[in-house]
Amino acid sequence: MKDLAPDGLWTKEDATAAILIARKRAGLKWEEIAAKIGMSPVWTHSACMGMNAFPRDKAEALAAALELPDAAIEALVESPTKIWQQAVPTDPCIYRFYEIVGVYGPTLKALIQEEFGDGIMSAIDFDMTVTRVANPKGDRVKVEMSGKYLAYNSW
Amino acid sequence: MKDLAPDGLWTKEDATAAILIARKRAGLKWEEIAAKIGMSPVWTHSACMGMNAFPRDKAEALAAALELPDAAIEALVESPTKIWQQAVPTDPCIYRFYEIVGVYGPTLKALIQEEFGDGIMSAIDFDMTVTRVANPKGDRVKVEMSGKYLAYNSW
Amino acid sequence: MKDLAPDGLWTKEDATAAILIARKRAGLKWEEIAAKIGMSPVWTHSACMGMNAFPRDKAEALAAALELPDAAIEALVESPTKIWQQAVPTDPCIYRFYEIVGVYGPTLKALIQEEFGDGIMSAIDFDMTVTRVANPKGDRVKVEMSGKYLAYNSW
Amino acid sequence: MKDLAPDGLWTKEDATAAILIARKRAGLKWEEIAAKIGMSPVWTHSACMGMNAFPRDKAEALAAALELPDAAIEALVESPTKIWQQAVPTDPCIYRFYEIVGVYGPTLKALIQEEFGDGIMSAIDFDMTVTRVANPKGDRVKVEMSGKYLAYNSW
Amino acid sequence: MKDLAPDGLWTKEDATAAILIARKRAGLKWEEIAAKIGMSPVWTHSACMGMNAFPRDKAEALAAALELPDAAIEALVESPTKIWQQAVPTDPCIYRFYEIVGVYGPTLKALIQEEFGDGIMSAIDFDMTVTRVANPKGDRVKVEMSGKYLAYNSW
Amino acid sequence: MKDLAPDGLWTKEDATAAILIARKRAGLKWEEIAAKIGMSPVWTHSACMGMNAFPRDKAEALAAALELPDAAIEALVESPTKIWQQAVPTDPCIYRFYEIVGVYGPTLKALIQEEFGDGIMSAIDFDMTVTRVANPKGDRVKVEMSGKYLAYNSW
Amino acid sequence: MKDLAPDGLWTKEDATAAILIARKRAGLKWEEIAAKIGMSPVWTHSACMGMNAFPRDKAEALAAALELPDAAIEALVESPTKIWQQAVPTDPCIYRFYEIVGVYGPTLKALIQEEFGDGIMSAIDFDMTVTRVANPKGDRVKVEMSGKYLAYNSW
Amino acid sequence: MKDLAPDGLWTKEDATAAILIARKRAGLKWEEIAAKIGMSPVWTHSACMGMNAFPRDKAEALAAALELPDAAIEALVESPTKIWQQAVPTDPCIYRFYEIVGVYGPTLKALIQEEFGDGIMSAIDFDMTVTRVANPKGDRVKVEMSGKYLAYNSW
Amino acid sequence: MKDLAPDGLWTKEDATAAILIARKRAGLKWEEIAAKIGMSPVWTHSACMGMNAFPRDKAEALAAALELPDAAIEALVESPTKIWQQAVPTDPCIYRFYEIVGVYGPTLKALIQEEFGDGIMSAIDFDMTVTRVANPKGDRVKVEMSGKYLAYNSW
Amino acid sequence: MKDLAPDGLWTKEDATAAILIARKRAGLKWEEIAAKIGMSPVWTHSACMGMNAFPRDKAEALAAALELPDAAIEALVESPTKIWQQAVPTDPCIYRFYEIVGVYGPTLKALIQEEFGDGIMSAIDFDMTVTRVANPKGDRVKVEMSGKYLAYNSW
Repeated sequence: MKDLAPDGLWTKEDATAAILIARKRAGLKWEEIAAKIGMSPVWTHSACMGMNAFPRDKAEALAAALELPDAAIEALVESPTKIWQQAVPTDPCIYRFYEIVGVYGPTLKALIQEEFGDGIMSAIDFDMTVTRVANPKGDRVKVEMSGKYLAYNSW
Repeated sequence: MKDLAPDGLWTKEDATAAILIARKRAGLKWEEIAAKIGMSPVWTHSACMGMNAFPRDKAEALAAALELPDAAIEALVESPTKIWQQAVPTDPCIYRFYEIVGVYGPTLKALIQEEFGDGIMSAIDFDMTVTRVANPKGDRVKVEMSGKYLAYNSW
Repeated sequence: MKDLAPDGLWTKEDATAAILIARKRAGLKWEEIAAKIGMSPVWTHSACMGMNAFPRDKAEALAAALELPDAAIEALVESPTKIWQQAVPTDPCIYRFYEIVGVYGPTLKALIQEEFGDGIMSAIDFDMTVTRVANPKGDRVKVEMSGKYLAYNSW
Repeated sequence: MKDLAPDGLWTKEDATAAILIARKRAGLKWEEIAAKIGMSPVWTHSACMGMNAFPRDKAEALAAALELPDAAIEALVESPTKIWQQAVPTDPCIYRFYEIVGVYGPTLKALIQEEFGDGIMSAIDFDMTVTRVANPKGDRVKVEMSGKYLAYNSW
Repeated sequence: MKDLAPDGLWTKEDATAAILIARKRAGLKWEEIAAKIGMSPVWTHSACMGMNAFPRDKAEALAAALELPDAAIEALVESPTKIWQQAVPTDPCIYRFYEIVGVYGPTLKALIQEEFGDGIMSAIDFDMTVTRVANPKGDRVKVEMSGKYLAYNSW
Repeated sequence: MKDLAPDGLWTKEDATAAILIARKRAGLKWEEIAAKIGMSPVWTHSACMGMNAFPRDKAEALAAALELPDAAIEALVESPTKIWQQAVPTDPCIYRFYEIVGVYGPTLKALIQEEFGDGIMSAIDFDMTVTRVANPKGDRVKVEMSGKYLAYNSW
Repeated sequence: MKDLAPDGLWTKEDATAAILIARKRAGLKWEEIAAKIGMSPVWTHSACMGMNAFPRDKAEALAAALELPDAAIEALVESPTKIWQQAVPTDPCIYRFYEIVGVYGPTLKALIQEEFGDGIMSAIDFDMTVTRVANPKGDRVKVEMSGKYLAYNSW
Repeated sequence: MKDLAPDGLWTKEDATAAILIARKRAGLKWEEIAAKIGMSPVWTHSACMGMNAFPRDKAEALAAALELPDAAIEALVESPTKIWQQAVPTDPCIYRFYEIVGVYGPTLKALIQEEFGDGIMSAIDFDMTVTRVANPKGDRVKVEMSGKYLAYNSW
Repeated sequence: MKDLAPDGLWTKEDATAAILIARKRAGLKWEEIAAKIGMSPVWTHSACMGMNAFPRDKAEALAAALELPDAAIEALVESPTKIWQQAVPTDPCIYRFYEIVGVYGPTLKALIQEEFGDGIMSAIDFDMTVTRVANPKGDRVKVEMSGKYLAYNSW
Repeated sequence: MKDLAPDGLWTKEDATAAILIARKRAGLKWEEIAAKIGMSPVWTHSACMGMNAFPRDKAEALAAALELPDAAIEALVESPTKIWQQAVPTDPCIYRFYEIVGVYGPTLKALIQEEFGDGIMSAIDFDMTVTRVANPKGDRVKVEMSGKYLAYNSW
């Protein structure tokens, strides 16, 4: 495993790199890593990529499962600064979701407001799953998002 | 209802404007309009906004339900050119979905490829629902997307 | 006051234009309009500009105060689509706030997360005031924002 | 602590890196560091991030508190060049403030000009606080900004 | 002169258009218009273009000088929203000033901070003149800007 | 001072870095450095930053004053490629000048053309000064630009 | 020919539109129009498009040649604001010139500075011709640009 | 000269760096280098910068003239990927050419199509020269471009 | 059919609008229109959209087939200025081709240069077909592009 | 060949670099490499550049043909994240394809929808060839794309 920086402090990028190596060595799927720490695959992958913060017990469980040093735990529990470089993603698998937001964004808004009133779906109090649905015409990807409805305040 | 253009041909924008007026006059929800034509609310709203093409029988059903002229039907069955002006949407309700793609895009990609192999979820052979889920801590918006898995070709 | 469209339906832009004219005719300040409908000046101005939706009773109160037709009320209660054209605002008065977000954004984030944990300040369950503070070296503008803390979900 | 560059001169980035390490080692909150140097938490964090210049006595106080070398003091007192990379920030906690400027910018402008005349709130002669406000429906983040009113000159 | 809008209210654009026509009819230079109202040519042109607000007495003087209707006065005294469309101007005469900011911006900053301390030159409490300087090698344009020094606040 | 590259050739960046270090060591202001080489502070700073080319004698004078090696002279006399990264600068001190160009650019153009005819102020045959002007209400920054008038050619 | 605006004042766009119609009616090539007014085709087309200002005698000659009203002359002699909408042009014929600047820009700069010293080719004191050169492998377009060399000032 | 990479393969950037050093050491102008290899200065500079591919014999001649190793020849003969970072160049000398394309692009198009028909000037089957033209009012830069006319295909 | 403009001159946009109406009235497919004028469907659609110029005989044939007035012919034979608004297209059907250029662009370049030498495929001396290929797993779209190879000039 | 990273794991970039070196050493064309692994040149080049994933047997065949270590195989079989930096490519050979999409995109869409109905050509279930076609007027590049037609879902 990589040498610790002389100051013994890891960044989230250091932790992600160490996780990817350990995962490859152990031959584990994200689903299996998620199961080992008792979290969902979506959240687990996202937090391992540095896009979510681990609760300390989950960071410790991950470190135990993948034999990561303590410095990794400290990095994993920190609040990340969520940055993405491409305003419009180029990878086709990610772009298709961007396209769905472009095409169906006004529809999502209209139906949320018709059903709930003037407000939004939270992207913070939020969870998501990805599953495979068998289908004779070709299996399908099912993505389920759930976010708390937040009403606009009038004051 | 608005005067027909002198040439009797409607654009999709003309049809959308007429639908919005008729809907307001009739006091119908999108869910009710969708039920009248036997389609889902998401698809119905999207097609009424000009972001999807109506099959002819559905366009006729809509015209009957909302008392739209024949010119509307011709516009509704045309293939739309799907254009959105804002690469990054500003409306908070739509932005949150953009944010989800930014934060979770790499995760969606990783889990789809872990489960299916090298490929994507189609945004064309695709459907979506929006529903309300009661929750004592505040009701939640549930969005379910389903798209056919498409494997990359090697040749 | 402007002619109603032939279909008797107003957009939010129609309502805003009518409010601005009526306000000028009546010689009212935003603070006075806000007082007439029992809401804050910030929210009142924002909703009159079409950036927030009026509860029906407040729309009716505004229409009564400014002698707006019923068509205005229907427009005012609708959920707006919040669009701004300039990703970076050019007006100096607005740019200064953009600059504050650029300079102090990471600081706001660090202190919120130090105090509350991993989460954000809501811009939806949100309110704001603007007041004048007398100061011998030159009066000061005081802006107070208050938004509900939302914790990131782990799942 | 990191090796000094051969020329013994630190950049502001060097100073920030050293502060972050020292803070972690000492287990101090920004609020505590701010108290040690007799400044507010907002200003202290911002200046430690290199977005504001330290008065020399405050730089010396910080160096004493965190055991930073003299080279750090020289870097801390320099005027920073304030650069941010993302015209539209992606981190959700910072984006929400950007969104507030987008939605309420014209309102802030209108109310400042109604109350003060044609002018702006300074972002230079400026201060800000972030506090927690207990609330039974969920605690709230309170941000208070205060800037000197500057009137446009006519000449 | 153009017909008043049915509601008798002018925008700043209306006022600018009327000024340009009246100026052409009267065959006046900006310098002459400025002299008539006792203001500088730079400020006068800028305010006539809708980029600055007229004090009421100056708006009345302008209206008298150019025979503008009262509706123009009301528009001229309003605080403008200062918008420019081109982040990078294309007109060569304006671009050269943009280029000067690009090339010499860091120099202006360094010398201001060397002379005054950590702060900026105000663009609000600001004035400017443009004059012709005879020169045997070709006359020169002289632009003099003067803005109040504003020191950054530490708090 | 930094090691020469193995090939003994310096870039302009190398020269700038060496100047900044030598200036700090010597405790010199830009004004003092400018006086030592008999040039203005604006030009001197700009050329030291690599945004203008030194005449050979001035480069030699600078090298003598700051004890720079010969390799620095060769770099200083080269024509720079003038590049700035931010189309819209973020630093507040530089942004204010950008804002002045945005607000007053059309005015500068109109007055130059009124006084001189169809043409521009050169940014090449150009000079500039920055000075402090004492003022009881707060000292002011005075920036004087002078550029040769260039008339458009008709052919 | 189009109706004059009620105020009898034409914009440059009005003049361009009138020229294009008159040219089509008269069946004239740009080369022929240029010959009639004793100017080059490049300058003539550019000025007719509103990208250069006519000297009064040339505007009068053009008006005589194309039977334009006096209002056109007033518009043609005004200094244009040169605006182009596309930072990167899409039309293939124009894009190729943009591409040449992208590919050969640094080369043009290097050779100008090698031959003349630190400076630029003026785009203001500038002229250009476009001619056809017969060639057995396919005729060639020849573009000749000539601009005054301007040396950077040191001060 | 720089160490070869362990694999003995040079990139075009390596070759450009080596050429610049060798040229400086030899005190050669681009014109002289071009003469040594029997090519034009424009093409020679461009190819040395990695924006054009050398025919093998010309690469060998250059390597002989500047004492470059064989690895340089292999890099010089490769087809470059022509990339420029700035859609709008900032260097004033290059920007002026960009400005010429912006101002005169539609004119170049109109005159090419008037003379040749519907088509373009090739930027591939293309050559260019830069020369100095003595002029009592100040010497001028002359740029001559020649590109094959390509007619649009109709099929 | 639409009224002619008072000046009897049509733009290409006028012609396109008239073609779309006439095509709808006549119930013709693009393939059928193409056959009537003896051109390919790709070129015919593109030229009808105003993205290519008609040879005069083809414009006359189209006018005869669709009963367009003579003014349409004059517009159709003009050289178009090819403008597209979206640097990155949003319509999914068009975006997929953009994506192919993004993913396979470097591959197209490498294989063209491997086979032909340093040069490009012309987009001017160019033709294209779109055909349907039956396939038991789902029919396929076949797009064939053919462009003349153009070698870079060395001079 | 390059040293393995201490952790023995290669990225796709490592694999691409190794392939380019091995190919140069072996003096192989892409066509020849493709033949050795039984795949097409387009796919082979694209996958070697890291823009497609190798099936394991093809990665092993490539490693055997080019004597790559096992670490390369692991990298080659991974799903790539397809990123391109330039929204508008600058290299002329690639730009021409971008231009074709800009000019002919709406035509491709119209003809696909005329022939197939409302849908798109897949860029995932996709293949492409590049071939040389001899032609007395100059050889031509032929690009053939084939993608599965995907119909939009209505639900």
